[in-house]
Amino acid sequence: MIKTVSIIGSGNVATLLAKALLKKDINIKNICSRSMRNAAKLAELVDAKPIINVADLDSDIDLLIISVNDDSIKNVVANIELDLPVVHTSGSVGVEVLSKFSNHGIVYPFQTFSKEREINISEVPFLIEANSSMLKSKIEQFLQENISNKIHETDSVSRSKIHLAGVLSSNFTIQLLIEAKKILKSIDIPFELLEPLVKESIAKAFAIGPEKALTGPAKRGDEDTIRKQASLITSKTLRSVYQDVTILIAKGQ
Amino acid sequence: MIKTVSIIGSGNVATLLAKALLKKDINIKNICSRSMRNAAKLAELVDAKPIINVADLDSDIDLLIISVNDDSIKNVVANIELDLPVVHTSGSVGVEVLSKFSNHGIVYPFQTFSKEREINISEVPFLIEANSSMLKSKIEQFLQENISNKIHETDSVSRSKIHLAGVLSSNFTIQLLIEAKKILKSIDIPFELLEPLVKESIAKAFAIGPEKALTGPAKRGDEDTIRKQASLITSKTLRSVYQDVTILIAKGQ
Repeated sequence: MIKTVSIIGSGNVATLLAKALLKKDINIKNICSRSMRNAAKLAELVDAKPIINVADLDSDIDLLIISVNDDSIKNVVANIELDLPVVHTSGSVGVEVLSKFSNHGIVYPFQTFSKEREINISEVPFLIEANSSMLKSKIEQFLQENISNKIHETDSVSRSKIHLAGVLSSNFTIQLLIEAKKILKSIDIPFELLEPLVKESIAKAFAIGPEKALTGPAKRGDEDTIRKQASLITSKTLRSVYQDVTILIAKGQ
Repeated sequence: MIKTVSIIGSGNVATLLAKALLKKDINIKNICSRSMRNAAKLAELVDAKPIINVADLDSDIDLLIISVNDDSIKNVVANIELDLPVVHTSGSVGVEVLSKFSNHGIVYPFQTFSKEREINISEVPFLIEANSSMLKSKIEQFLQENISNKIHETDSVSRSKIHLAGVLSSNFTIQLLIEAKKILKSIDIPFELLEPLVKESIAKAFAIGPEKALTGPAKRGDEDTIRKQASLITSKTLRSVYQDVTILIAKGQ
């Protein structure tokens, strides 16, 4: 059973996991972060020892959770000399980055996290993977008892594709909202005007399926409107997005 | 005061307006649709006379509402010989298409409509415009008393831009969900896995602003992940969208 953990990272995911574990009967030994200030802040919150160097990790733990930027995982791993059971929390980094550890896996929370938002972690789906069935069942039990029971087993290829689906439908959607907000701002219209439309669009897509939920000029084939709208877009990159998504919509008809 | 109206069109918007007016003290004279079946169906629902030819419109009405496809408005207008007070409900067709009528304007509901979804019309923002202040105040009163009090006055240029903002943040968002669903389907993962992520993303964007809500590999500058994700996309058009939106996100940093 996993009862003692350490966490490398002090970002949104690391913080959320640490806070969730604090409420449960789990002992957090170390919080490791490149920034002593961040390490100390989170460690104090969850009664752990802050460290800035992975060489100082306590060896007496049941699981090490690496929750840092995708690009930093490799570097962090290279500096760990203990053969601990290790998971990372990334959606797009393969499990092979952890292969030097006898027991390793992935615990990927499929949600968007920002410091400003409270997330109910028990509602978050977790995609998990491990190189041994023993570690996998330990992780499952650990998540179920302490974090979330929405657990999906996947391999690294599937997880990459799920992460891509998440980027398209979450990050890209928000970027489109940023672009829409800029357009509204240019005519002194508040962003909030979009709220009923966007929320209904999303609710509809999950209620009746996105294919049926689709409306608008591209779906109807209103060529005049499409041409006029494209001409209103000043950014070349956004205009290219407009044309390509219009093609995707039209192809689906 | 507007007490008697006719509606040209039998689509989602026409149906929703007709149903809302039925509940109020408004007399609907004609429902006009190219398809007699559709005209008859909606007319029966709201106790109106169905017609298929605009030449048969009753002249004794206070407002004619044209609620047809953007591309069809011009053609419909050409066939109306009476000088009635007229509005259309399109977001992107200019008011000048109605210039042959002495009193004309626009009543554009800023929402997405599908037959399968019940919409609370009193929550829908309406963008309005008219060529005379008399008609404008009549329309305002008519909307407030019978349909929705969320009324925004705009000119045609602003309305086009608001419509574009709506297309980007509603229609395009749904197309991205369709693409995400296809990717998940290829690995036998249900679309519903996306629901917590997408709903939180949207809620967050309206709670703290979309700029602050943005997360993901493009925002973090995780180059390896971006390259890997782009390579997972088989459609050339979607890959182009991926690259362009990634650029927009990166530029915003």
